[in-house]
Amino acid sequence: MKAHKKNRILRSFGNDHKLSHQSKHLLLELYRCDYQKLNDESFLRCTLNRAAKLAKATVLNLISNKFDPHGVTAIALLAESHISIHTWPESNYSAVDIFTCGQYMLPELASQYLIEALQAEEHYLRVIERNPPAAVVNEMRTVV
Amino acid sequence: MKAHKKNRILRSFGNDHKLSHQSKHLLLELYRCDYQKLNDESFLRCTLNRAAKLAKATVLNLISNKFDPHGVTAIALLAESHISIHTWPESNYSAVDIFTCGQYMLPELASQYLIEALQAEEHYLRVIERNPPAAVVNEMRTVV
Repeated sequence: MKAHKKNRILRSFGNDHKLSHQSKHLLLELYRCDYQKLNDESFLRCTLNRAAKLAKATVLNLISNKFDPHGVTAIALLAESHISIHTWPESNYSAVDIFTCGQYMLPELASQYLIEALQAEEHYLRVIERNPPAAVVNEMRTVV
Repeated sequence: MKAHKKNRILRSFGNDHKLSHQSKHLLLELYRCDYQKLNDESFLRCTLNRAAKLAKATVLNLISNKFDPHGVTAIALLAESHISIHTWPESNYSAVDIFTCGQYMLPELASQYLIEALQAEEHYLRVIERNPPAAVVNEMRTVV
């Protein structure tokens, strides 16, 4: 699959390791979720797709795997990085990560949506700033 | 794709949020990497596969996307979670995450291999403990 990158605005070409607040990696633990939803591969694929759109991301590919007797992994490859959901329905638990790199991304909306969609009664969210060079921060990957 | 989960050893069935040291999420920034390697989709797919094997993980699916004019994303869906590589060759930078959940995983070996394979002259590694319930920690997903 090919994607085109445009609207490149390179303000710096150096290997400047300046911290960016536009490259976020959200690690989300979801507890006491609904068993059926955590074990429903089709539902999780749709949910992941919807979460990506809420984050203003572009989904380029989406894969999933259903484990036997229970458990699903679904991963969306985004133009702006990725989102993954790993579920353990037997423990009503899901481990999510939402990694977005771009100026206009809204990963927190995706996080909030997933908490509600999987009916998590408890959650634990960590927002981690990744550390790309400045040139990466100021560049948008937009696909056509 | 179907995978079977066996060798389940559930020591606890409760929603115990006990911290596990067997569910690790490594966030790795790679700086001053080799441009050609970061822009070589085939190389990155092979490298990701090799990294997963070093971590003692089972690769169930592997997807990638080549951006135009440069940049690659490659993601491996593992029986034990996932590994992703996102590259910005123009900045000689790659953002990696290695998420493994299991008792016998070696994610640090995968991290060290990727540092060397992409010829990163600098790197920044953060090892984050995820917080699954105890039942998840004590369960192995083994595929047949």
